[in-house]
Amino acid sequence: MPDPGNDRGMELDGRRRVVVTGVVPEIDGGRFAVKRTIGEQVDVEADVFVDGHDALACVLLHRFQDGEWTETPMAPLGNDRWRGAFTVTKIGRYEFTVQAWVDRFMSWVRDLPKRIEAGQEVRIELLIGAALVEDARRRVAGPDAEHLARYADALRNGTREEQESPIPAGLGALMQKYADRRLATTYERTLAVVVDRERARFSAWYEMFPRSCAPTPGRHGTLMDCIQRLPYVAEMGFDVLYLPPIHPIGHTHRKGKNNATTAGPTDPGSPWAIGSEAGGHKAVQSELGTLNDFHRLVERASQFGIEVALDLAYQCSADHPYVREHPEWFRRRPDGTVQYAENPPKKYEDIYPFDFDTNAWRELWAELKSIVDFWIAQGVRIFRVDNPHTKPFAFWEWLIGEVKRDHPEVLFLAEAFTRPKVMYRLSRLGFTQSYTYFAWRNTRAELTEYFTELTQTDVREHYRPHLWTNTPDILTEFLQLGGRPAFITRLVLAATLGAGYGVYGPAFELCERVPREPGSEEYLDSEKYEIKRWELDRPDSLREVIARVNQIRRDNPALWGDRSLRFHGVDNEQLICYSKRTDDLASCVLVVANLDPHHPQAGWTALDLATLGLDPEQPYQVHDLLTDSRFLWHGARNYVELDPRRAPAHIFRVRRRVRTEQQFEYYA
Amino acid sequence: MPDPGNDRGMELDGRRRVVVTGVVPEIDGGRFAVKRTIGEQVDVEADVFVDGHDALACVLLHRFQDGEWTETPMAPLGNDRWRGAFTVTKIGRYEFTVQAWVDRFMSWVRDLPKRIEAGQEVRIELLIGAALVEDARRRVAGPDAEHLARYADALRNGTREEQESPIPAGLGALMQKYADRRLATTYERTLAVVVDRERARFSAWYEMFPRSCAPTPGRHGTLMDCIQRLPYVAEMGFDVLYLPPIHPIGHTHRKGKNNATTAGPTDPGSPWAIGSEAGGHKAVQSELGTLNDFHRLVERASQFGIEVALDLAYQCSADHPYVREHPEWFRRRPDGTVQYAENPPKKYEDIYPFDFDTNAWRELWAELKSIVDFWIAQGVRIFRVDNPHTKPFAFWEWLIGEVKRDHPEVLFLAEAFTRPKVMYRLSRLGFTQSYTYFAWRNTRAELTEYFTELTQTDVREHYRPHLWTNTPDILTEFLQLGGRPAFITRLVLAATLGAGYGVYGPAFELCERVPREPGSEEYLDSEKYEIKRWELDRPDSLREVIARVNQIRRDNPALWGDRSLRFHGVDNEQLICYSKRTDDLASCVLVVANLDPHHPQAGWTALDLATLGLDPEQPYQVHDLLTDSRFLWHGARNYVELDPRRAPAHIFRVRRRVRTEQQFEYYA
Repeated sequence: MPDPGNDRGMELDGRRRVVVTGVVPEIDGGRFAVKRTIGEQVDVEADVFVDGHDALACVLLHRFQDGEWTETPMAPLGNDRWRGAFTVTKIGRYEFTVQAWVDRFMSWVRDLPKRIEAGQEVRIELLIGAALVEDARRRVAGPDAEHLARYADALRNGTREEQESPIPAGLGALMQKYADRRLATTYERTLAVVVDRERARFSAWYEMFPRSCAPTPGRHGTLMDCIQRLPYVAEMGFDVLYLPPIHPIGHTHRKGKNNATTAGPTDPGSPWAIGSEAGGHKAVQSELGTLNDFHRLVERASQFGIEVALDLAYQCSADHPYVREHPEWFRRRPDGTVQYAENPPKKYEDIYPFDFDTNAWRELWAELKSIVDFWIAQGVRIFRVDNPHTKPFAFWEWLIGEVKRDHPEVLFLAEAFTRPKVMYRLSRLGFTQSYTYFAWRNTRAELTEYFTELTQTDVREHYRPHLWTNTPDILTEFLQLGGRPAFITRLVLAATLGAGYGVYGPAFELCERVPREPGSEEYLDSEKYEIKRWELDRPDSLREVIARVNQIRRDNPALWGDRSLRFHGVDNEQLICYSKRTDDLASCVLVVANLDPHHPQAGWTALDLATLGLDPEQPYQVHDLLTDSRFLWHGARNYVELDPRRAPAHIFRVRRRVRTEQQFEYYA
Repeated sequence: MPDPGNDRGMELDGRRRVVVTGVVPEIDGGRFAVKRTIGEQVDVEADVFVDGHDALACVLLHRFQDGEWTETPMAPLGNDRWRGAFTVTKIGRYEFTVQAWVDRFMSWVRDLPKRIEAGQEVRIELLIGAALVEDARRRVAGPDAEHLARYADALRNGTREEQESPIPAGLGALMQKYADRRLATTYERTLAVVVDRERARFSAWYEMFPRSCAPTPGRHGTLMDCIQRLPYVAEMGFDVLYLPPIHPIGHTHRKGKNNATTAGPTDPGSPWAIGSEAGGHKAVQSELGTLNDFHRLVERASQFGIEVALDLAYQCSADHPYVREHPEWFRRRPDGTVQYAENPPKKYEDIYPFDFDTNAWRELWAELKSIVDFWIAQGVRIFRVDNPHTKPFAFWEWLIGEVKRDHPEVLFLAEAFTRPKVMYRLSRLGFTQSYTYFAWRNTRAELTEYFTELTQTDVREHYRPHLWTNTPDILTEFLQLGGRPAFITRLVLAATLGAGYGVYGPAFELCERVPREPGSEEYLDSEKYEIKRWELDRPDSLREVIARVNQIRRDNPALWGDRSLRFHGVDNEQLICYSKRTDDLASCVLVVANLDPHHPQAGWTALDLATLGLDPEQPYQVHDLLTDSRFLWHGARNYVELDPRRAPAHIFRVRRRVRTEQQFEYYA
């Protein structure tokens, strides 16, 4: 006696004939969840087919967490592809899958008119239909059973005239409702969607060292000083304030100015050398203030619509309490000392990495999670994770999974600058957002290729790009050499190519651009190793441009996401042109930027009018939201000219002509 | 206490840090086996990486059936991609997977020279190395343990000079042999390879109706007549003789000439209407002879190097014994009659399909398998399966799996002409070879697109294309209108684009090309419904061209497979140009065909010389194996001209210049 279907999972019955396969979105065969933010739609497609010519019915099943399943119909697209969709309305984890079955009644309904048209006698066919209805009736109780019985009767006793349109409207609905699904095929995997709040997709970050926030020179800045700085940050329009580590800084092997191997007596050290006798990852450095001050900062920031993000840097200075209390979490060298961080021949003797190979890894993992729990209890909901690619993938998957189970509103930004597959693995396993290679993509070809990959391939299902113009570690050559126009161009690119972006300030708005030495991306006199005094009111500050750009972002829903990004042609390679839009085209933004910070550049666009929803026969306006000037354009080919000394980029709102009832026309 | 890695399969230990993913070849997440033929290589690639900077070791594991695992090293290709390979040497099922681990000793070996070059003191580093060797020693017994102990001692006590090259050659090998794999990651799936004999990849089929093989007119041909026909088939160079069903043919609703709904008293009926009171799928139609005659045919054919392939058409005439003995295997209509085959409004009343939805499906499956077993017992090893897409996928997967478990040498050719996803599903689930859309691909664009998909995408891992010039159901418009040149062109295309191909003869070699009516692909007076008399000796027969083409196929290993197929440019769209080659370039065939059967066409090639292994600076010969003429060519651009009335195609052997030790040159 044969065993059915070689015992493949779902195919317990050899009569389960429908195949459901090729389901998207699916990452690594369902190994990881896809990502959405609240209110977004999940479009699901699948290959669904059966042997022979039977009609199929196909539904999409979805549920929130382990709640009730909701069913929505899927529709055929042709070539055996089916599509359905559901909208995610809560933060947390959704599941979905696809189910399909042979619908004999539908086959019958489909074929009957063909038989009648061919002039065939259909008496027997009507009896077949009646038998199918009768079958359904046997599965049903109550009034529907009676309805079905009546329909079956009608089919059995139908007159010739009735046969011409023998399928009553209500019957189809009832038969669909009571379809025989005993041999339905459910896709062999249940796929997951992690739903985050909107800030996971759309946010503008400002990175700032609290210790440089003192209003008077020579004093160590404090968290209370940060509170005073909030209006400045809010006026520029940022909604996340990210602070480098605020914990006690180690003394042993402390780095001096410009990363000198020995520190002077007043050098404050790098905030990433975490831990001293005063405490570790759960303490606030006393020079910055108290935990209470931190609470106040979080609260005041929220009144400005700003969230405070903390740095999660899982490493220790030699003076961290862990080193003494948990020697088993660190690797020892044969001379009994603790193994410092290194990338041979480079040594980072002020940093002790955790030894994730330790036998005590479970205790280590638990303690590291307790750090996140601690700061969540202090009101933090966003963590910028330092170098996640130097800690095990399994650890992050566990940590993020555990944290988000209790706090699905928590966001983790992965600061990994490493090989692409490693970066994508981190986003797959759960990081909410990810740093990108944006800082080093300068030419049109580079930008187009990279952002097409990020927004138009499967990558977008798990990787949410976060674009930084600069960081304390990254002062790019482009900024060094391009000066103020380069800063503006990169600001516009970051803020419009990426719904998530950030700047490290005030270095950014003050166009700080002197490298430690030629060829270096390190800042000269980097804030990482000393307290800086920033002249915020300098007249050449970019704060107003930044404010304008962030306002444009908020005003134009087209810029709230990345999926609609499309590049358009321009016949000058120094110009880049791209658009974003909402599905309904109510918001449509077109950016043209001059990638040459040194010279004016001009050219003719080759716009994809269909993407922009424009009628090739109608004029339209492009309204530059940076300068408030408007241009009347027509068709795909339009002239643009950008002088970097005046305005290195346009951020156009595309306004199409609208005719009102009164025959007035205006541009919406 | 944290649970490790969210409990994902292999990650039972949170210290299992290496990720192995993106393994190819893999079909549908490992759901199906990839296909190879004996002697072929399986190239395996995987993404393998770990957090941080540790060195990795990576191996490919493979085994035949459930034998011992063999391990071969994989090498990094860059960008975290690794590659390895193994060769399949037996018919049956292989398995493979990938394993990788952090190799701390390799990291140490890699980093030590960097430390020494930087002038660092490495005494402690040597002790670290010694400890790693000592660790390995503890895992080993016997002489290797002593070797390792000595190496550890040497590292502990090394002098400064020894430190300059402190890693003895033998140590690396031992450390690799005894690597600590306790925390190795094995890819989460074991992938399968089904290995067939060579004929699964390279075969030339000849389809022939035995009943038309009688040497004298008016007589029903027999299997003994087929034996007489063998030299004719063998001379043309075919190695598979495929017979339409040879079973008793039903009487009820028998079809007459040209598919007439009523048959005359002498009409033989369609061989696909299987079964009469004389027997069913396990019987031989008495007019054809006996089972003994069939045995003789199989045996004689094998002496000619020809295998007999039988048709597996799972359907019954109304007179089939199954209909009486197993009414439960057929669907009943309300009037008590058996449901005939139909595609509304078309009715095929001479055919009863099996009802695979029957409750008795297990018994039905078993009986259908017993048919295959029966013919295997009669010496058949190749089955051409009629319309597999009208029977459940699960049935075929089970049937083929079961049959090949005991008889891995059995081949199944799927005759499915349906939607692409259905055809690909059939090949995925196990069909050895598959009919293609080749017959309807006539233009260069169509052929290039289709054969690129078949040979250069993942499709090639499961789908072995079988190209038919014509079949009893398919007389294409191209052949109808193009006449003899069209027949030759399509022969050359089928035989060189496809390592597996076939013709339906003698209709093909006699250029039979009159359709039943204009617009039909059916033959007028089709052999499906009547006995034909073929004038095999007609002077315009293509038998000699066919013999030549099949000889070329046998002589040129380039044509024994499809993976090397590459298309080259020609500046005339009516010309198509493509090549096949062996990996070592010892055999390289270049085809140029005129797709216009009506007019001479000429043009200039744009050859991809790298694919052909040609030096752009050296002349080379192209040797037309059809006409034995040779041309001296140079570079990518060469003139070709093909007159369909003389020779519609070139099959060139590419001969490159070879310089011997004696300074003579010739073209190999």
